[in-house]
Amino acid sequence: MSQHVVVIGAVALGPKAACRFKRLEPDSKVTMVDGSDLISYGGCGIPYFVSGDVSDASQLQSTSFHMVRDVKFFHNVKDIDVLINTRVLSIDRKNKTVRLQNVVDQREEDLPYDQLVLGAGSLPKRLPIPGADLKGVFTVSNLNGAMAIKQGLADGAVEKAVVIGAGAIGLEMAEALADLWGIDTTVIARADQILSRIVSPNMAHMAQCHLEENDISVHLGEKVLKLEGTDRVEKVTTDKGVIDADMVIMAVGVAPNSELAKAAGLEVSANGAIVVNKWMQTSDPHIFAGGDCVEIPHLLTGKPGYFPSGSLANRQGRVIGTNLAGGNAKFEGAVGTFVIKVFEMSLASAGMSLKTAKAEGWDALSVFISQFDRAHFYPEKGLMYMELIVDRKTEKVLGVQGLGDMTDAVFARVNAVAAILKYGPTTADISNLELLYAPPFSAAMDILNALGNTAENVLREKIKLIDVDQFAEWWRDRDGSDAVFLDCRGWGNAKPFAEKYPDDWKSIPQDELKMRMDEVPRDKPLVLICNTGVRSYEAQLNLRQEGITNTYNLQGGMATVKKWGFDL
Amino acid sequence: MSQHVVVIGAVALGPKAACRFKRLEPDSKVTMVDGSDLISYGGCGIPYFVSGDVSDASQLQSTSFHMVRDVKFFHNVKDIDVLINTRVLSIDRKNKTVRLQNVVDQREEDLPYDQLVLGAGSLPKRLPIPGADLKGVFTVSNLNGAMAIKQGLADGAVEKAVVIGAGAIGLEMAEALADLWGIDTTVIARADQILSRIVSPNMAHMAQCHLEENDISVHLGEKVLKLEGTDRVEKVTTDKGVIDADMVIMAVGVAPNSELAKAAGLEVSANGAIVVNKWMQTSDPHIFAGGDCVEIPHLLTGKPGYFPSGSLANRQGRVIGTNLAGGNAKFEGAVGTFVIKVFEMSLASAGMSLKTAKAEGWDALSVFISQFDRAHFYPEKGLMYMELIVDRKTEKVLGVQGLGDMTDAVFARVNAVAAILKYGPTTADISNLELLYAPPFSAAMDILNALGNTAENVLREKIKLIDVDQFAEWWRDRDGSDAVFLDCRGWGNAKPFAEKYPDDWKSIPQDELKMRMDEVPRDKPLVLICNTGVRSYEAQLNLRQEGITNTYNLQGGMATVKKWGFDL
Repeated sequence: MSQHVVVIGAVALGPKAACRFKRLEPDSKVTMVDGSDLISYGGCGIPYFVSGDVSDASQLQSTSFHMVRDVKFFHNVKDIDVLINTRVLSIDRKNKTVRLQNVVDQREEDLPYDQLVLGAGSLPKRLPIPGADLKGVFTVSNLNGAMAIKQGLADGAVEKAVVIGAGAIGLEMAEALADLWGIDTTVIARADQILSRIVSPNMAHMAQCHLEENDISVHLGEKVLKLEGTDRVEKVTTDKGVIDADMVIMAVGVAPNSELAKAAGLEVSANGAIVVNKWMQTSDPHIFAGGDCVEIPHLLTGKPGYFPSGSLANRQGRVIGTNLAGGNAKFEGAVGTFVIKVFEMSLASAGMSLKTAKAEGWDALSVFISQFDRAHFYPEKGLMYMELIVDRKTEKVLGVQGLGDMTDAVFARVNAVAAILKYGPTTADISNLELLYAPPFSAAMDILNALGNTAENVLREKIKLIDVDQFAEWWRDRDGSDAVFLDCRGWGNAKPFAEKYPDDWKSIPQDELKMRMDEVPRDKPLVLICNTGVRSYEAQLNLRQEGITNTYNLQGGMATVKKWGFDL
Repeated sequence: MSQHVVVIGAVALGPKAACRFKRLEPDSKVTMVDGSDLISYGGCGIPYFVSGDVSDASQLQSTSFHMVRDVKFFHNVKDIDVLINTRVLSIDRKNKTVRLQNVVDQREEDLPYDQLVLGAGSLPKRLPIPGADLKGVFTVSNLNGAMAIKQGLADGAVEKAVVIGAGAIGLEMAEALADLWGIDTTVIARADQILSRIVSPNMAHMAQCHLEENDISVHLGEKVLKLEGTDRVEKVTTDKGVIDADMVIMAVGVAPNSELAKAAGLEVSANGAIVVNKWMQTSDPHIFAGGDCVEIPHLLTGKPGYFPSGSLANRQGRVIGTNLAGGNAKFEGAVGTFVIKVFEMSLASAGMSLKTAKAEGWDALSVFISQFDRAHFYPEKGLMYMELIVDRKTEKVLGVQGLGDMTDAVFARVNAVAAILKYGPTTADISNLELLYAPPFSAAMDILNALGNTAENVLREKIKLIDVDQFAEWWRDRDGSDAVFLDCRGWGNAKPFAEKYPDDWKSIPQDELKMRMDEVPRDKPLVLICNTGVRSYEAQLNLRQEGITNTYNLQGGMATVKKWGFDL
């Protein structure tokens, strides 16, 4: 039974759904419609195209075997018709037609469909501030926009850039501008941390330090009020000052592109996302939708979630393609995953941050540790910093985050937790998580296992912790507070601090602690310190055995303090 | 309530159990007993110590903060007594004592225990052949043995080495000898592939090619009959010839070290492994055991499995430590994981190989694909080769394998599957597996998702495949067989083959296939070829639409043929 499927939107989800369907029903007809002339490109590659890592826009549009996915490609290779430069004005669900308009000659026509796919993606938010439409002000929306940005850079007209927004796209664009083009770049965000809904304040702070080491200025808690310029943008005025800029990138998030669906009477959520069931069907069974324009179940909260992601879009596209052909494929939802390259570092997360988990009503806590990414005796290695978010009551794991070198080491750990999160693992499952082990790849007790162990220790109230930000605060306030900072490392490590701050910084190596117990102040809170938090944990147990329990183990140790950019 | 815990074996499991227990019950006493004078070392690091990557044996014995874990360390830092050079002669379960013998002065004594831990590990198998006890013949059993091997190498007395056995330890030792010491090294194995119970013949063949590229000779299907020499080993005689050797490493597997347990009447399996419950308790509730001397449930077969691994031993040690202190920690079992560095490549697996799965009674099949480890437009990337093993009936995933560059890319993918295997994922779960995505780390449709998709396509009988080994066989026999080899790549790629073999190798690029359908031979089996298997899959569907179904898609494409070492 041959049918005609119309696909609206020809990036990520649309082509995937179309191609999958055609593989299953080669005798049916597919027409894909897109408002632009550039289609089927890897939108997530835009920052790498802007930076120059990807030299040519056509590479983003190419298959892995170097064929450009243009109209001709879809026609010849996929037997799919594509109408480019074509807007969809409306959907007539009763008559099962879509009203099209050619954006070049304005010509309109009706296109009948048997089944329809909505894959219109998202639209970048634009701040409603004066000057937002000045020349030189861009959003990162599509490949045409990216080409305009790159042209501006190549013309040499840009010396100073401001990126508004410190989410993934904002940071990737900032790196693209600063790294390869050498542009004086400032990131401005209203939140008090970068990547605010994604990673913890401390993870964010560590990544921010690395951005700053790479000459990117980061302004947090700052609100952009207006953009000004005569011919083009020249300056950015915020509630804290004025910054010169030849280019402004607005990367303040995206919103689902669902106007068409709404106008057609399809169910759309309060947040503007199209509502679909697990077969990716809208409230009209003849219309499927997926990608950045829909909401899908959040597998941890059970509530609808919004996860704009090229990767999810591709997988949802395949599900839709299968179901268009009468299949029974399901898309259960997502836990939310994230990874970003920040110059020479990688930062990743899966599931919820502590803040999000608490906002969702969990009695959550997080533990933080640092550990080598390979056996500690293996010569080539780097430190990783990871955080696990767990629910106190059920001991369920709610999220994980990691920061490390620009290898796949952090990616590998967070990937493993991302994969199991939907199964509802507990801290014990993480303690015993079966991971691959050989010294060139991991430690016998992997950092994930250690995270599970630490979480369990904290949950059972065996240890009290402090975070690096609290540590910094206590240290700055050391004259006002009672706290004593007890360095549990060998004298060689402790010496510079103990000698510089004889009143505040005490050195007792952990292996000497039992013999030197009488030197430990019993009437003051003790902050226990070592390089990574392991020896200070041992010290904490040793002290408890002696009845000294007002102790706080510095999570992640001095390695984390350093990475966090705090100088004592 | 203070108690005395005796731990037999002071490597991996023993120290972990002892330290965990002491953290929970600091007032109790622990005595750890070991027959050697070197304890608590990372045994998996031995090949890297032999190679010189790890310069000093004490590094394997050190903590991550550079303290050597010797008797003094355990005493001062952990409050654990260690009796080194002490053999355990017997266990008197009734009186709860162990009979000890000092191996230096032969003095014997009884040591009472409240609870006992058996962590005696495994013993390397030694082939019962003439000359096995000659000087210069080693097993890789412990750090003392490794030091003897390294001393032999450092003395410069070794020019030619033979490694018997092509499992992980054999290959790691071969690399150690050949790479840094430049020794002419031969690996001999009875099986017809390396890593025979771990990875598929094709994965093994690809890794073997890489070993050979690095000047290691690999002899498969060869049986060692005897070792000969006057003062020390000089030659190795096999059923196929004689090989000169100044050093022989026997790495033919390990067996659980369970004699003591057996003699004490504890339940021991037919394979000689100590039987424990999920609390790691032996048949005597006062005696725990773990690590290389026990069997644990295989989480895929449900049967007992033997998984000697330093990583599992550590995690089991923690479980035992918790339970010694009255806790309720469980160790469910394992799915089996593996990763190895082979010069500039990494090879990994989780779960079962196709052969093992079939032997266990599954109607299993495997699919194989090659794909870049990052977005294909991202400049720095490498090809990965992965195989997924699934059950036809339930579509459950039984195992996964991967080969790629010496980054963590393969490690990251296999880790993610390893983590979920115990939850019983199906191919659909792999198709939709939520993994981290950003172009510097992965493709929008990760190789794992693609593997799930391919498996589903095969299961639903949408495509027929051939493996690279079958391809090689068909190609070699092309004069006798009817098969036509149809290259679906662009003419540039196909030309050298089409011109060299005009009768056998036909070029029709996939995007021209529909227009050139009349050129396709309809009466012969067609082997469809492209670079990675993606375009040839498309071609297969195009051909089927025209009624041409006697087609075989070459899994992994020419990239795999090349990696497999097959020259056309």
